[in-house]
Amino acid sequence: MNQIDLNSDVGESFGRWELGDDAAILRLVTSANVACGFHAGDPRTLRRTCELAAAGAVTVGAQVGYRDLAGFGRRFIDVDPVELADDVVYQVGGLDGVARVAGTGVRYVKPHGALYHATVHHDGQARAVAEAVRAYDPSLPLLGLPGSRLLAWGERLGLRTVREAFADRAYTRSGELVPRTQSGSVLHDAAHVAERVLRMVTEGAVEAIDGTDVRITAESVCVHGDTPGAVTMARRVREVLEAAGVTLGAFV
Amino acid sequence: MNQIDLNSDVGESFGRWELGDDAAILRLVTSANVACGFHAGDPRTLRRTCELAAAGAVTVGAQVGYRDLAGFGRRFIDVDPVELADDVVYQVGGLDGVARVAGTGVRYVKPHGALYHATVHHDGQARAVAEAVRAYDPSLPLLGLPGSRLLAWGERLGLRTVREAFADRAYTRSGELVPRTQSGSVLHDAAHVAERVLRMVTEGAVEAIDGTDVRITAESVCVHGDTPGAVTMARRVREVLEAAGVTLGAFV
Amino acid sequence: MNQIDLNSDVGESFGRWELGDDAAILRLVTSANVACGFHAGDPRTLRRTCELAAAGAVTVGAQVGYRDLAGFGRRFIDVDPVELADDVVYQVGGLDGVARVAGTGVRYVKPHGALYHATVHHDGQARAVAEAVRAYDPSLPLLGLPGSRLLAWGERLGLRTVREAFADRAYTRSGELVPRTQSGSVLHDAAHVAERVLRMVTEGAVEAIDGTDVRITAESVCVHGDTPGAVTMARRVREVLEAAGVTLGAFV
Amino acid sequence: MNQIDLNSDVGESFGRWELGDDAAILRLVTSANVACGFHAGDPRTLRRTCELAAAGAVTVGAQVGYRDLAGFGRRFIDVDPVELADDVVYQVGGLDGVARVAGTGVRYVKPHGALYHATVHHDGQARAVAEAVRAYDPSLPLLGLPGSRLLAWGERLGLRTVREAFADRAYTRSGELVPRTQSGSVLHDAAHVAERVLRMVTEGAVEAIDGTDVRITAESVCVHGDTPGAVTMARRVREVLEAAGVTLGAFV
Repeated sequence: MNQIDLNSDVGESFGRWELGDDAAILRLVTSANVACGFHAGDPRTLRRTCELAAAGAVTVGAQVGYRDLAGFGRRFIDVDPVELADDVVYQVGGLDGVARVAGTGVRYVKPHGALYHATVHHDGQARAVAEAVRAYDPSLPLLGLPGSRLLAWGERLGLRTVREAFADRAYTRSGELVPRTQSGSVLHDAAHVAERVLRMVTEGAVEAIDGTDVRITAESVCVHGDTPGAVTMARRVREVLEAAGVTLGAFV
Repeated sequence: MNQIDLNSDVGESFGRWELGDDAAILRLVTSANVACGFHAGDPRTLRRTCELAAAGAVTVGAQVGYRDLAGFGRRFIDVDPVELADDVVYQVGGLDGVARVAGTGVRYVKPHGALYHATVHHDGQARAVAEAVRAYDPSLPLLGLPGSRLLAWGERLGLRTVREAFADRAYTRSGELVPRTQSGSVLHDAAHVAERVLRMVTEGAVEAIDGTDVRITAESVCVHGDTPGAVTMARRVREVLEAAGVTLGAFV
Repeated sequence: MNQIDLNSDVGESFGRWELGDDAAILRLVTSANVACGFHAGDPRTLRRTCELAAAGAVTVGAQVGYRDLAGFGRRFIDVDPVELADDVVYQVGGLDGVARVAGTGVRYVKPHGALYHATVHHDGQARAVAEAVRAYDPSLPLLGLPGSRLLAWGERLGLRTVREAFADRAYTRSGELVPRTQSGSVLHDAAHVAERVLRMVTEGAVEAIDGTDVRITAESVCVHGDTPGAVTMARRVREVLEAAGVTLGAFV
Repeated sequence: MNQIDLNSDVGESFGRWELGDDAAILRLVTSANVACGFHAGDPRTLRRTCELAAAGAVTVGAQVGYRDLAGFGRRFIDVDPVELADDVVYQVGGLDGVARVAGTGVRYVKPHGALYHATVHHDGQARAVAEAVRAYDPSLPLLGLPGSRLLAWGERLGLRTVREAFADRAYTRSGELVPRTQSGSVLHDAAHVAERVLRMVTEGAVEAIDGTDVRITAESVCVHGDTPGAVTMARRVREVLEAAGVTLGAFV
């Protein structure tokens, strides 16, 4: 595999509150998970972020989340799947409108925060998200965790599913993410992270937290951009991949 | 003129809170101004309302408003026009997504409440709404008050503009609405209102509050549906128009 | 036992959206669980509700909930207990301010909706609510379900705890509420409900869903007031209790 | 006059979004205008800010605002004064609850952003704020602009009113603030600003934008803390005042 997509969360400012350096991270990634207004992202922010993405030929995805500004979408909410599906359609539609006005459009969907984590195991919410995407536009791929209920439902409903890996997260020997509550779950050394990503892409493998090797098959790697250190790490990942001859390109 | 459109506000429930009898009013009108989530209308409500509209072949319009659930969009907010334009695009996009999933789509735009009133005179906000509509889809008509800045900007930007009249509001001799703060500004007798609407449609005239006749040229007449009395009035308007051989049909 | 408190949820309108007939229910109950703005209740609504309560000598309690207007506080949110405690303090303080201006004040606390149900078993959230109440004012009682973690934490922290029963809910033979998802969980016959409440108060017992008798020790009985039928049922409960010589009085 | 109060806005983070360096600014000022949740400030933020203020013996004031997170309270909203008064009571109560739990309490009230500016001239909203404060606690002073309707209503209703000056704003020869839209309205040089403040305090005068001298009588001077540069300026103001023998102390 000589090509990989780098994705990152952007558009997460809200009114007076700024978060992340979207301009910097959009020069590094190939896919942008743009917030949709429910967990973050006022329409003006979304418009500017989409304009930056369009100018840089970065693919725009809809990062749908729970309606929870106070919790930034990071708290599980036991939303009725019927309501969740409509929340997802509305969010994708809202962002898509803004993105089209900005000269691009929504090209994929990825759940945010607690919804991302919930749809790994929560069958009802995973199905709701997948059904919403199919109803909105069955040509939109779903980006998510390999083995998640979300991708299982995506496949079952005929959507293209795109598996992602995480640049700065430790893996268990069975290929799952080490929970954030556990020591060593998040990696901080940019050079080390970049080498891990290179190995994921070129060898399809990564060293698990217990020192064993684990297979990782990903079409996209998630990097962060919400702190100066995160932008530096993303830059290093990109540089190392390019130096090794890996082509960076969006999956869609 | 033998054809007229009847429009009404729907989709204004929010979660547990129900408002209006959408099912009843959607059997009477030809165009539905569906809320877009900023002043009212959660996505589940919007979905059900759009499904009802689709089932009844009622045209769906986006009723965009200020971001103000607590005030139901009825309080003027001095939003920067640049931000307002993006708020409008996001709202139209969100509703359009839901409407398409429900088997229809947004076919026109009408501002709600305080934004409707503001865009009569507030040049910056009127222009922002018109520019947002043109940017989103220049084929969408703007529904509004004759003589308003909103329609002026719509024309200037090449949008189709649709003039509306109000069934239950008194008019001044110069053809403006009598302010709600003034006695006699709102009419309550269903039979009387229905006869006024008939005359607007067939003669292009209505009796002003001072007893003089005033010209009214409208392609759509706004009726209300948020109370049982309002639904009764809308039904009477429809019956009187049909009995007189007027064709009821959406303007788009 | 010849005295009982009747409590009901009030103050749950929000802006344009009206819910429940607060004026009617406040003539029937002795304690009012007033919403605090997070799941329902704008400040104007809270003020009017507290004024009605003050005028009728009805005791005001703070019905704290999750920050979730769209879900009316009926969806579990996995809020960090540290944040939840501060959310509770803020809500009690906000309502207390309004209530004092209205001539009364917050005299007890009862969680609303999904927070009520969560704090039956969720130790962290139950503790957070109890600690918030103790921090705000340790003289405020906690109203809740017998056997709940909430009341357990209340006792442990030195708060007065008040056990409540539900007028219109079926009980299991072990004294727990039959889940709403189960058939027969909610009772609809006003006369039957009133007789059950009378027996709870005078005999400390109620017939469980399987026909056996179960002990119920409650200092307060919850009745609803959000529909005309609910108000009728509450009235019947009150009439039957008064006819039997039971004194209706707030527990605080 | 050898004593002056320095006030600054704090507690304006919201959930994931951080704004300002509250810890730094609370080491410099003597009064803290703490947000109340409507324009900014989730309860956890308010609690931590109040704890810092309590630890540093900084006086806490309630900075009440419009209900407008998306606009950070900086957009005029034409709220009905009756509703505004209740919004103010609720906000003061909510913050007061949190502040008391944090070991302090609300000691004064100052409107925020667009509400501050509106209550300079808008009689109805100014009266609503003053009446709300009197109703909540008539011993709380109102902090505001000399000559404002807000302070006029405060005096009329028997409240203590406290006049403030702005460290980094240019004044007209008649003693009003130069509008922000005008060039030169905001001063950026820390040393220059510090000297101006010293002269305000010791001479009761400041050089107006046209070079003339204007009388300024203030009991409190507002400094900002939402950027690193603002904190540096506030520090310089404090140092210059202290070096000149001016005592820094809260007005209440």
